[in-house]
Amino acid sequence: MSLPKGKSNCITDISGIKVGHVTLYENINDTDTICTGVTAILPHSGNSFMKKTRASSHVINGYGKTNGLIQLDELGLLESPIMLTNTFSIGAVTQGTLQYMLNQNEEIGDSTSSINLVVGECNDSFLNSMRIPAIKPEHAIQAIKNASSNPIEQGAVGAGKGMMCFGHKGGIGTASRLVASGNQAYTVGCLVLSNFGKPADALFADLVNIEVDSPDGSIMIIIATDAPLYDRQLKRLAKRCAAGLGRTGSHIDNGSGDIAIAFSTANPYEHTSEQATESTDFIRDDHTIMNKLFQAVIETTEEAVINSLKYAETTTGRSGRVVKKAIL
Amino acid sequence: MSLPKGKSNCITDISGIKVGHVTLYENINDTDTICTGVTAILPHSGNSFMKKTRASSHVINGYGKTNGLIQLDELGLLESPIMLTNTFSIGAVTQGTLQYMLNQNEEIGDSTSSINLVVGECNDSFLNSMRIPAIKPEHAIQAIKNASSNPIEQGAVGAGKGMMCFGHKGGIGTASRLVASGNQAYTVGCLVLSNFGKPADALFADLVNIEVDSPDGSIMIIIATDAPLYDRQLKRLAKRCAAGLGRTGSHIDNGSGDIAIAFSTANPYEHTSEQATESTDFIRDDHTIMNKLFQAVIETTEEAVINSLKYAETTTGRSGRVVKKAIL
Amino acid sequence: MSLPKGKSNCITDISGIKVGHVTLYENINDTDTICTGVTAILPHSGNSFMKKTRASSHVINGYGKTNGLIQLDELGLLESPIMLTNTFSIGAVTQGTLQYMLNQNEEIGDSTSSINLVVGECNDSFLNSMRIPAIKPEHAIQAIKNASSNPIEQGAVGAGKGMMCFGHKGGIGTASRLVASGNQAYTVGCLVLSNFGKPADALFADLVNIEVDSPDGSIMIIIATDAPLYDRQLKRLAKRCAAGLGRTGSHIDNGSGDIAIAFSTANPYEHTSEQATESTDFIRDDHTIMNKLFQAVIETTEEAVINSLKYAETTTGRSGRVVKKAIL
Amino acid sequence: MSLPKGKSNCITDISGIKVGHVTLYENINDTDTICTGVTAILPHSGNSFMKKTRASSHVINGYGKTNGLIQLDELGLLESPIMLTNTFSIGAVTQGTLQYMLNQNEEIGDSTSSINLVVGECNDSFLNSMRIPAIKPEHAIQAIKNASSNPIEQGAVGAGKGMMCFGHKGGIGTASRLVASGNQAYTVGCLVLSNFGKPADALFADLVNIEVDSPDGSIMIIIATDAPLYDRQLKRLAKRCAAGLGRTGSHIDNGSGDIAIAFSTANPYEHTSEQATESTDFIRDDHTIMNKLFQAVIETTEEAVINSLKYAETTTGRSGRVVKKAIL
Repeated sequence: MSLPKGKSNCITDISGIKVGHVTLYENINDTDTICTGVTAILPHSGNSFMKKTRASSHVINGYGKTNGLIQLDELGLLESPIMLTNTFSIGAVTQGTLQYMLNQNEEIGDSTSSINLVVGECNDSFLNSMRIPAIKPEHAIQAIKNASSNPIEQGAVGAGKGMMCFGHKGGIGTASRLVASGNQAYTVGCLVLSNFGKPADALFADLVNIEVDSPDGSIMIIIATDAPLYDRQLKRLAKRCAAGLGRTGSHIDNGSGDIAIAFSTANPYEHTSEQATESTDFIRDDHTIMNKLFQAVIETTEEAVINSLKYAETTTGRSGRVVKKAIL
Repeated sequence: MSLPKGKSNCITDISGIKVGHVTLYENINDTDTICTGVTAILPHSGNSFMKKTRASSHVINGYGKTNGLIQLDELGLLESPIMLTNTFSIGAVTQGTLQYMLNQNEEIGDSTSSINLVVGECNDSFLNSMRIPAIKPEHAIQAIKNASSNPIEQGAVGAGKGMMCFGHKGGIGTASRLVASGNQAYTVGCLVLSNFGKPADALFADLVNIEVDSPDGSIMIIIATDAPLYDRQLKRLAKRCAAGLGRTGSHIDNGSGDIAIAFSTANPYEHTSEQATESTDFIRDDHTIMNKLFQAVIETTEEAVINSLKYAETTTGRSGRVVKKAIL
Repeated sequence: MSLPKGKSNCITDISGIKVGHVTLYENINDTDTICTGVTAILPHSGNSFMKKTRASSHVINGYGKTNGLIQLDELGLLESPIMLTNTFSIGAVTQGTLQYMLNQNEEIGDSTSSINLVVGECNDSFLNSMRIPAIKPEHAIQAIKNASSNPIEQGAVGAGKGMMCFGHKGGIGTASRLVASGNQAYTVGCLVLSNFGKPADALFADLVNIEVDSPDGSIMIIIATDAPLYDRQLKRLAKRCAAGLGRTGSHIDNGSGDIAIAFSTANPYEHTSEQATESTDFIRDDHTIMNKLFQAVIETTEEAVINSLKYAETTTGRSGRVVKKAIL
Repeated sequence: MSLPKGKSNCITDISGIKVGHVTLYENINDTDTICTGVTAILPHSGNSFMKKTRASSHVINGYGKTNGLIQLDELGLLESPIMLTNTFSIGAVTQGTLQYMLNQNEEIGDSTSSINLVVGECNDSFLNSMRIPAIKPEHAIQAIKNASSNPIEQGAVGAGKGMMCFGHKGGIGTASRLVASGNQAYTVGCLVLSNFGKPADALFADLVNIEVDSPDGSIMIIIATDAPLYDRQLKRLAKRCAAGLGRTGSHIDNGSGDIAIAFSTANPYEHTSEQATESTDFIRDDHTIMNKLFQAVIETTEEAVINSLKYAETTTGRSGRVVKKAIL
């Protein structure tokens, strides 16, 4: 028995969360095509450094280069937007996001601490001429500025522009679920950047078996909720993403960077405080709502992958390579 | 495209591995029934302390009491049989297994080091009067002595006698897969002790929806292979069990101790050596065989759970409680 | 600048914490001597299952067999006394502690969940005929019953009876520190079971360099505080024990099971609750008090090791082996 | 009894290892000073992508932004130089290092996989106007090109230019030890970027107690050896750095990113291979040489920190701030 979907079946069903894309597409010459982008997930509409967000992560398979998880896990806090891009643009997107945050906060790196930026990636080099540094710092800034709480554009957009999944066109996908128990009611949302899987492995569709000799790929999975959870509990949510991936047919291949990040919009943590202690409310792990939250993570992970295929259009990339829309 | 099954579709398809059960069933009085047991998995036919086995583990959800994983992960070695039983019999089974190993090795705890024992458990208290310490150290010794390399008795047997899965009778299940590439050919086997899941969650069957208010349960997952892998690689295998669980419909509930242990029968490690170094052959992570090993783990985990249901007979436990055979 | 010591310089300076010992010493015959024991640390005077304690652990080196850390880390809770004994008595002490807890709680394993027991160990086989199962379940029960909040008997007592440290007599040691900032005042206590180190390695004393060909040993480190911390923060405390060990001269040898467990007596967690959420106060990680708590962990770990030597008397064990009191 | 030092007491005592610095120092105006740099550690003289190096890491305290550890730990391999810089230059150094590696390897991101770059940092904002992006990608390339196997310039140089330690001038420090047993002889080297500690905490010196209200700082610790170890064993080495830190007086403060990376120059791993398996020789964990390697890590970590102070000259940074040379 599946859980009910959220209003728009989007991660932005959770109040305050915004998502923005910048998409680049340009044929440079006969062999080179820029087919890539940046996606920004904002945990709330305010200043993400001054009002930090409870968060944790889980590395399902670590063939990936995501930045910022060491500090996120040490402190259980997210203090920047979560940025997604291609593997070789981690540097540029880090710089751009830093610039955005420094402009917003004059104290960072001067009279207060430094800032921890979270930037994830997948390898879009099958379609995108990834060795060409097309993504610039300003694209990261633009993705943040583009962010809105509207239903998200999915598929071959933003960081998903050049990605592929189960041999078909993948990219950005999202889904949400409503979880309730007694007078408690929460939403769980998931956004994925899908870029994994061999055609024959998908469980949910009779995919056309095309010949593609591509890298093993990767998937970035962002889980969000308004349920009041703290880092240890959010790590438990992040770990359930592996079960959701299993339901799509993924074998979590050797070369796949499968990384889950979970955050809660409840109980924000102020950067500065007069107080030595903070008072917070958290869900009890043994309450039945927790199992439903786990279920919601698994269902939204699975469906976000499917949606990343469903909404992605056939795309032509470098060297004339074509990755087709999946027939679901 | 699924991988081909091993000869007997059992973990004992891997040369040298043996499995033994001791099953206890007795009605004590109107309310109390002993419905439990012990299962022993021997990594090879020899002395498991003197000839250690490469191993690693992954805690999918840690609501469990498995012993011995700290040292197993520190050294990447298994040096005892893997024992399975009910939650409250960890102490007795540890003692019995220790006695067996001390009898076999006069040097342990005298002129050489101590020994690390691996004992896993699930909570069978829905059917079994678990507060009664029915399992004695000698049952552990007997389970080891009962071990054979024949196809394994599955379902409500050994440690699986009192377990339930998706609201139906579960317990011991196993499966195996053949993995080949070029002139490389290996087997992956899985043995589970299944004790998890709500009736409505199973993906693989139209289970009758009975009302059961049981604990969240647990699953012990033992992965074995003859492929030459070392601990880091075996941990990668163990992590894939979460995807296999996801394919059964598990939500990895809060109260579920979902623990995977993976070992390789290749490259045994001698307890004593004249040499400062050891020479070994290991599979390269980037060879295609690795992805097939991952696939085999996911497939055998899923099928071992199904087999634990398929072979388990309807069982009556304490207070007249009946847990029915699943209709698959 | 060291922090001020607590009233008795003991872990029992923290209100509610109790420690109890059972010590066994008997010459069996010319070669065998029983020289071992059990030590129980009670997090508070009440029912440790019904009123759970925030806790976490860190494995500094995992050549050890401590039980119960998987669940302790998953849920961030301790629900039993922490028991210490010799390596081969883990089974008996687990059984005895289980029996004590079952007697105290009729619902465990019947109408409520199972219970997670934490039992740590060191290898005292240099002095103790460890292959002889002298420790019985009732010794564990007795150690719990012996527990008091008085200053702790240290040295060759309880689980420390047969232990050695830097080639000299070690065993149980404790220390405490007071931490204050503004109107916040807390205590940090440490209790160790010391059993590690070669004579030449100690930094704090001109130890006589005797010839001892002993196993690498181990150390169990229990950190307690009344500061309101939750599991992630307690893990941070537990990780600082490695720095404290470093200050004694430890090289954290291969065969040493160096395991730290940290718990807080603040914010107990009720086993049952009508509420879906819990309200709690926790110290902010960026408050200066946190650095002082870290310092207190390092200082008490170092001093508890020194005290385990300072209070341990020369002891004669099996085969006439003598381990001398250290000259500090 | 300390181990003998290597020929130059430098990480470059290990054959093949090279270190290069780029140092920037410029007074921009009355308040802003560029006082920072980049340091590159090359694991060998060849192509670090085509010939990968066994490696692992340990996060002692995760208030840090080091890139590349996820994949390094998943595969147990280092495939780039290790780069060190200030916190806000992670992006630029990542880009520059990527450019260097792409120029060297035309297949990366085209016909073969992507590349994992390891970039660590400390926060030098007390002396350096870190908000000004003075470090450019070409500085990273230049640091790599500057690398040599000569004894290393230490102190206020390269990434160490603006760092401080225990309230005095810190930065780059190194040390090495010789480890032998039978006919085995190996070297362990350590290079640190020190930037942690309050003046009153240092154990090794009567430091002048100046008033400095600085961030908690950080330390990057790079351990190298020619001993044949694989990733699990290298993680064991990395974990011992915490004991070495403890011996300096560090309390591993909340805001300190204390991160250790260990690699072995033995048994390089070729990027491409015809073989499904690789044959390797590794040290047995239970051989006495392992404990000496652990000791060497602790001693070199401690001494590298001391050397980072010993060789660092008094430095004037932004806003006229002066950080003095320590009197050791």
